[in-house]
Amino acid sequence: MAGEKKGLHLLDFWVSPFGQRCRIALAEKNLAYEPLEQDLSNKSDLLLRANPVHKKIPVFLHDGRPICESLAILHYLDEAFPETPALLPSDAHARAHARLWADYADRKVFECGTRLWRLKEGGEPQAQARREMVEALRTLEAELGDKAYLAGEAFGFLDLAVVPFTAWFLAYERLGEFSVEEVCPRLVAWARRCGERESVARSLHPPEKVYEFVGYLKNKYGDK
Amino acid sequence: MAGEKKGLHLLDFWVSPFGQRCRIALAEKNLAYEPLEQDLSNKSDLLLRANPVHKKIPVFLHDGRPICESLAILHYLDEAFPETPALLPSDAHARAHARLWADYADRKVFECGTRLWRLKEGGEPQAQARREMVEALRTLEAELGDKAYLAGEAFGFLDLAVVPFTAWFLAYERLGEFSVEEVCPRLVAWARRCGERESVARSLHPPEKVYEFVGYLKNKYGDK
Repeated sequence: MAGEKKGLHLLDFWVSPFGQRCRIALAEKNLAYEPLEQDLSNKSDLLLRANPVHKKIPVFLHDGRPICESLAILHYLDEAFPETPALLPSDAHARAHARLWADYADRKVFECGTRLWRLKEGGEPQAQARREMVEALRTLEAELGDKAYLAGEAFGFLDLAVVPFTAWFLAYERLGEFSVEEVCPRLVAWARRCGERESVARSLHPPEKVYEFVGYLKNKYGDK
Repeated sequence: MAGEKKGLHLLDFWVSPFGQRCRIALAEKNLAYEPLEQDLSNKSDLLLRANPVHKKIPVFLHDGRPICESLAILHYLDEAFPETPALLPSDAHARAHARLWADYADRKVFECGTRLWRLKEGGEPQAQARREMVEALRTLEAELGDKAYLAGEAFGFLDLAVVPFTAWFLAYERLGEFSVEEVCPRLVAWARRCGERESVARSLHPPEKVYEFVGYLKNKYGDK
């Protein structure tokens, strides 16, 4: 976008797991950037110009040129800043594996989470969303297995892509009336391990604050 | 998967746009492989073992190791066979742009297409799917602009990712009662241009055959 400021900017919204994974990635790469918190109820001209297709955050601006979609932003950070620590593994098969699971988290965990708050409480569709959420979390836990991190022995691409959803676990639990700790103890231990990392701790928000925000979403956009 | 055959195999289903984009990519890269057509109404042990998460085609097997999800397969082909012609552009920004639009086609065109055949004919939800399909195709046409190809002046990643949907245009038209040629003449011209390419011509099926298959889908899985 002609005339935009030089440097690195992230159009973001504090509670978005998609924005958070970009923040964690930028921190892991030690890339200094200016966060541009967006008001999603009154979208800025900058956001609408930067992402005219989806009109959504996150958008990463590199010298004014927009990169949209969080997983594409993570790929871009590796490709445009090859001198910084790589997020994706170097092996082609491991890269494909990481992409598969990041996409799984977006399609299953996020999608079931949205249905949990949007659908009417106590109905069968919400109960179905709860069952699918538990199944998705169990599938992720099985993928974690005995490893310290989803990416293997060290924190990596897949961990930073998935860990933002853990700040939503409390909200999922209260909406779905289940305990993530009971169904997926190893996943909860992994979330704690990730949370000790500075890049993660600084990018996520307290689960109670996320739950409060989910209440606002439910009240404003949920089925009545 | 231990004990699997050496070489390159593609678990596929003839009419799948996701499988077709892999076939086109393999042809563009001159990579010889064995296609393994799957019976999706009776999934093979091989498919279930290769893609236990989604249980879907396409799956690419490289010396028995599975790569799942079509866009991940395209990335893998570039990364595992760097000596073959690259599918993705080399510039980081252009790569991000290609990923954004391939994802757009999957999320909008395919998703609206599924609603078009699945939903009851003549109802408001189906009419809504039709409107969204027309909007998605217009958005793709605007992205094409005056370029010869979605990827620019030469056929590339984005073209091979999107072109399989063009074999479904006839089915979309008949289900939605609209003419793609009328609403998106440049997109239709682009589809013809792509169809002249050998890799595309050999991978896609006649629109009438696709329409016949969509009729089978509608009859078997559509809302009654």
